[in-house]
Amino acid sequence: MVEKLTPMSEDFNEWYTDIIQQAQLADYSPVKGTMVIRPYGYSIWESVQSYLDKKFKKTGHQNAYFPLFIPNSFIQKEAEHVEGFSPELAMVTHAGGKELEEPLVVRPTSETIINHMFAKWIKSYRDLPMLINQWANVVRWEMRTRLFLRTSEFLWQEGHTAHATEEEATEEALKMLNIYAEFAENAAAVSVVKGIKSANERFAGATRTYSIEAMMKDMKALQAGTSHELGQNFSKAFEIQFSDEENNLKHPYQTSWGVSTRLIGMIIMAHGDDKGLNLPPKLAPYQVVIIPITPNEDSRSMILESAQKIINEIDGDFRVHIDDRDNISPGFKFNEWELKGVPLRLEIGPRDIENNSVVFSRRDGVEGKFNVPISEIKNKISENLDDIHNKLLESSKIFREENTKHVENYEALIAALNSEPGFVTCYWDENSSDEDRVKQETKATLRCYVLDNDKTGSAVNNENAQGKLAIFSKAY
Amino acid sequence: MVEKLTPMSEDFNEWYTDIIQQAQLADYSPVKGTMVIRPYGYSIWESVQSYLDKKFKKTGHQNAYFPLFIPNSFIQKEAEHVEGFSPELAMVTHAGGKELEEPLVVRPTSETIINHMFAKWIKSYRDLPMLINQWANVVRWEMRTRLFLRTSEFLWQEGHTAHATEEEATEEALKMLNIYAEFAENAAAVSVVKGIKSANERFAGATRTYSIEAMMKDMKALQAGTSHELGQNFSKAFEIQFSDEENNLKHPYQTSWGVSTRLIGMIIMAHGDDKGLNLPPKLAPYQVVIIPITPNEDSRSMILESAQKIINEIDGDFRVHIDDRDNISPGFKFNEWELKGVPLRLEIGPRDIENNSVVFSRRDGVEGKFNVPISEIKNKISENLDDIHNKLLESSKIFREENTKHVENYEALIAALNSEPGFVTCYWDENSSDEDRVKQETKATLRCYVLDNDKTGSAVNNENAQGKLAIFSKAY
Repeated sequence: MVEKLTPMSEDFNEWYTDIIQQAQLADYSPVKGTMVIRPYGYSIWESVQSYLDKKFKKTGHQNAYFPLFIPNSFIQKEAEHVEGFSPELAMVTHAGGKELEEPLVVRPTSETIINHMFAKWIKSYRDLPMLINQWANVVRWEMRTRLFLRTSEFLWQEGHTAHATEEEATEEALKMLNIYAEFAENAAAVSVVKGIKSANERFAGATRTYSIEAMMKDMKALQAGTSHELGQNFSKAFEIQFSDEENNLKHPYQTSWGVSTRLIGMIIMAHGDDKGLNLPPKLAPYQVVIIPITPNEDSRSMILESAQKIINEIDGDFRVHIDDRDNISPGFKFNEWELKGVPLRLEIGPRDIENNSVVFSRRDGVEGKFNVPISEIKNKISENLDDIHNKLLESSKIFREENTKHVENYEALIAALNSEPGFVTCYWDENSSDEDRVKQETKATLRCYVLDNDKTGSAVNNENAQGKLAIFSKAY
Repeated sequence: MVEKLTPMSEDFNEWYTDIIQQAQLADYSPVKGTMVIRPYGYSIWESVQSYLDKKFKKTGHQNAYFPLFIPNSFIQKEAEHVEGFSPELAMVTHAGGKELEEPLVVRPTSETIINHMFAKWIKSYRDLPMLINQWANVVRWEMRTRLFLRTSEFLWQEGHTAHATEEEATEEALKMLNIYAEFAENAAAVSVVKGIKSANERFAGATRTYSIEAMMKDMKALQAGTSHELGQNFSKAFEIQFSDEENNLKHPYQTSWGVSTRLIGMIIMAHGDDKGLNLPPKLAPYQVVIIPITPNEDSRSMILESAQKIINEIDGDFRVHIDDRDNISPGFKFNEWELKGVPLRLEIGPRDIENNSVVFSRRDGVEGKFNVPISEIKNKISENLDDIHNKLLESSKIFREENTKHVENYEALIAALNSEPGFVTCYWDENSSDEDRVKQETKATLRCYVLDNDKTGSAVNNENAQGKLAIFSKAY
């Protein structure tokens, strides 16, 4: 049943949770802060996995699986890391009917256990680079949760690599950032900014954190993926050493990088509208939905037969679904599949069969309804899906640009962040306490310094210093 | 480094753990009873997943994801279920720095939480059948662990379905059993017996448990997959109800079914030998390994170039790896890839290039080394991989048949089970305490009653009753 969807303009948060439940992407679970990912939502995640996994493998990474439980002592080994995670840990204290001697931590991320194993596996420069990825669930006990964006358990991938030199580690971290950015734009149709985090926003234990940042329809920022250089922090704490070509023992340089099911939240909030989801064709569970229009029982079997012929022709090339429920009107189905964000709808009724054509209707509304001869269906689906993708990506870029403002001084920064939503750029001189002050005064954070941008200018927080181009925004 | 592999005949258990570590399938982890699945082992799991996932989807199932943590009260709801699992549960008692009001159980299986959600989602007969699958990690605290076969955490898939009628549930449970059997034979090249469990060996909470049973090289049985009819046990405990076409409220009939990373243990123990692993071509991480034979530095680049041409030609069709390490001799590589069980080895040296051919060598030793003209490589790889698969499957079937003995009375059953390893079949009159007695006297269990077999005979445990054909064996 389609219930009323709260309009986006009225209450963005309500709109977001309404959509997730009504489109059956996910549901609340009985354990506070956790969620159930329903088939329609999970299918998007499967497409994300399939797209990224191929890219990871092409760039030499291999998947592996490490234990869910981590000895508490491991988490304690890397001082900054423990600080970053200790308030969020879930602990197993009893198992097999007994109290455990040492409590086990349910992994919030796997740096510690993976590096423990790396210490065993890495002996020589010939073992490097070691390029490992894991698809897994992780747990971070969150006080304020939000479906897909912040839940106590979530699904993600975490890459962990070790390299002989710092240069190679930097190259790896940037390579993976670029894969994430390429995914965001070419698969999710979301334009992103690539950046580097300030010390305040850096991952606990990293020397550098890169991220991609996207703008949602409420003009807040969403960090969609991160890639970290870890320096030798973990390789020293976990005593990972390799002998180089001259037989000297050295600690490798490392990276880690990840994206999670929060990407589904990004897709909802970057493209959705008052009708519901608006899914990018490459990740949509169904790219095409076929609605048979059967005014009477006589025509029904003939029309279903024609629809089946179309499915047989396109099934291998596109993800297609036929909605042949006989107890629900076409109009109701149109609304439901719009809510579910299917990019392309095909209607086929008696008149269409006479004319040897079908009616196309795009979720983005471009061109309204239009007839397509049956002989051209395959090409036209392909063309339209490509065009839908391109327009989504283009809109997302324009929307961000239109809602990004550049300011020249500190007062203007604070005023802009407090007066209207959106990104505010400025030149910034890295300074932790200044950053805290902005956060206190505006609730906005320094999202990132923009990568691939060499321009510097007089810093808004220190007119005597040359600052780097930074983006401030409220964020998820 | 290839260390010495304990011969199978000397100590099967040592052989098994040696192989796993030396072939880098898995490693022990610092948390007792858990394991790290290394890339070479994980790749086998990925092939298992990919093969089965397609079959599940073709038969109408959809993937979803349910929370790792389950309220303790849920586990208590279904009386038999709690009995089956309570000694094995791992409990989270603290999270986010606080003690939890109710401890959370780390899922040993997801019947309870999934059925809680089904109660919310299922309202009408139109919502049935509900066909859900989940790929996930589960935790059962085991006292005696064994890599891949019994670890405190393992990876698996669990299917959970709900149907309007008992007949449909039976059909579903058998359909999935058949998919598992088809997988075992067509992908893993392991011949299996399909059977139904006795009440003693049934899944906690099921009305019927079906399984596939395979024979390992030490002649013990391995249960490779199970499919359960749950009747209305869970739908009643979790109050799942649907209104049928006449608007009557009814409890659906349910099934659940699963296979796990223990399948990797099966593959090792069904096909391995004193040289190491012997992987079935459809699941092998590499189906073909190419070893360049480079007697001197001059020929090296020419030979690598020729090898690369071969790779370019076959890469899309087969999983191929070139071992171009220059610090290791060909002989050493031969041993290493035999240990790792790659089905087909291709050698290419200066003389082969002159003759426009390569040298093939099969892991199963059939035909020894033989020359194949470069023009025929693709076909010959394909032919040989098929033949390797067929021979593995055939051997596994013959091995089981040769090591299965039929007995006509109880004394002969006990004597056979105590005197030599292998399966022992007999006609058996279902009786729990008789079964317990056999177990006490022989350590063997009733693996299953053979499905697709209508023959009955005078039961060895009750000569006045007609028994069903049963298999007894020691098992993993």
